[in-house]
Amino acid sequence: MRLATLELENGDTVAAAAYAGGWVALPAPSLSELLRTGWTAPTSGVVEGPQVAGTLVLPLPAPAKVICCGLNYGEHIAETGRELPTHPTLFAKFADSLIGPTDDVVISGDVNADWEAELAVVVGRTLTRASRAEAAEAILGYTVANDVSMRDWQRRTLQWFQGKAWDATTPVGPVIVTADEIDPTAGITITCRVNGVEVQRDSTSTLVFDSAELLSYISTFTTLRAGDLVLTGTPGGIGMAREPAWFLADGDVLETEIEAIGTLTNTVRVTEPASRARRTA
Amino acid sequence: MRLATLELENGDTVAAAAYAGGWVALPAPSLSELLRTGWTAPTSGVVEGPQVAGTLVLPLPAPAKVICCGLNYGEHIAETGRELPTHPTLFAKFADSLIGPTDDVVISGDVNADWEAELAVVVGRTLTRASRAEAAEAILGYTVANDVSMRDWQRRTLQWFQGKAWDATTPVGPVIVTADEIDPTAGITITCRVNGVEVQRDSTSTLVFDSAELLSYISTFTTLRAGDLVLTGTPGGIGMAREPAWFLADGDVLETEIEAIGTLTNTVRVTEPASRARRTA
Repeated sequence: MRLATLELENGDTVAAAAYAGGWVALPAPSLSELLRTGWTAPTSGVVEGPQVAGTLVLPLPAPAKVICCGLNYGEHIAETGRELPTHPTLFAKFADSLIGPTDDVVISGDVNADWEAELAVVVGRTLTRASRAEAAEAILGYTVANDVSMRDWQRRTLQWFQGKAWDATTPVGPVIVTADEIDPTAGITITCRVNGVEVQRDSTSTLVFDSAELLSYISTFTTLRAGDLVLTGTPGGIGMAREPAWFLADGDVLETEIEAIGTLTNTVRVTEPASRARRTA
Repeated sequence: MRLATLELENGDTVAAAAYAGGWVALPAPSLSELLRTGWTAPTSGVVEGPQVAGTLVLPLPAPAKVICCGLNYGEHIAETGRELPTHPTLFAKFADSLIGPTDDVVISGDVNADWEAELAVVVGRTLTRASRAEAAEAILGYTVANDVSMRDWQRRTLQWFQGKAWDATTPVGPVIVTADEIDPTAGITITCRVNGVEVQRDSTSTLVFDSAELLSYISTFTTLRAGDLVLTGTPGGIGMAREPAWFLADGDVLETEIEAIGTLTNTVRVTEPASRARRTA
């Protein structure tokens, strides 16, 4: 099943499920709100409701937790000069960080913005100190994300957070495909293109820590709930690791694609220089 | 003015402001909800409302953002073997991380839990790319926190987050003292005691990045809103830096005190070993 949040002609939004001919409305203004009510996908795979049409927007506008894993594909770990990890490297973003599948990536100021195509896991129910099997069963589905990162800010201090949690810079969507339909551990192709040039391509089968493992590990220290989002890390090919380094510029078109889920197409907009940042730097 | 969230005899909670003789109820079930409505302290300093009595609980149960600064007191930076930073080192916690001023610090499993007494700043209104002066004006007030950290998890990877964001381990309170009443840049004494033994003592005047600077810096990349919480870092004296290292154990009483705000008194409870953590380790 494919789930989405649609924006209607009148500007309202609604959670929706796909059927052969289009979309059926679900009883909430977004998937975030729907999942908070305890909604689960019917096992029959058939969703009842009024037909609806609209534009695909950020499917999960209000996750309580957005947790990201770094250094999780072998090739990307190699390009950063590090060894294979024994534990997942984790950091947080906010709901404010997220934008929809066709929204502009708005970057304020003169920063080194870089791409990171990622598979994102959507939590389907509450997980506390869950085993791997429990975590696997709690996966609602998967979506596409790009963990756009401000490398200069990421590297200012030991902690990456301040380069990762910029408002309105992390596209997510276009839909959530439920876990019964795809299995990333079996290998799904993930690619990233900048202005049509392919910069990242890998298979999710090469993830060091897979989705169930990540959810189980995180749930050891903090509770995950329906609608929370976990980004699973990016493959090799980031701009910072190139010679010379390649960063995103105003007008660049960033495409992030995962086979069997869909494509995010976001234009980079660089706004006025960060006066505050300049003063601090 | 002193602000708090009180738990009443019937189990309900209510936001409240102190007056000479006790507490006056404010129109929301907690300070988090009150601040979200746009409430501001009356400039007269006189709050109207029905008198109310109850127990002091977590004043801000639902901040949308909890952002912490590490390495912000000279002595603590020295004990970690690092140099004075040019930018604040930042990471995130969750609302789930927080507990009230007398709640138990519940630690699941056999981990190296350590204390970090901290001054916490409460944001009073929305801040986006704010100057230092704008940030200073947006400070609602200050409270006490202890950024209890699981050192083994904090050091498993490059990112501290997984040692910092454990559910129900960060006490906050007992009250928020508004910014017109105290000035941490002028120097307020912060202390931490374990079972009555003083382990940390410093003055907030020695902070490398003060509260206004932190809020301004953070607001460069993410919007801060009323009720958000920023922890400003801990002084020297952490358990990990001792010879031999000293970590918190079941039954330990952790007291965190800031002059002119109050004291948190939390008992450490170690629950069953972390089966999940053991399996992963």
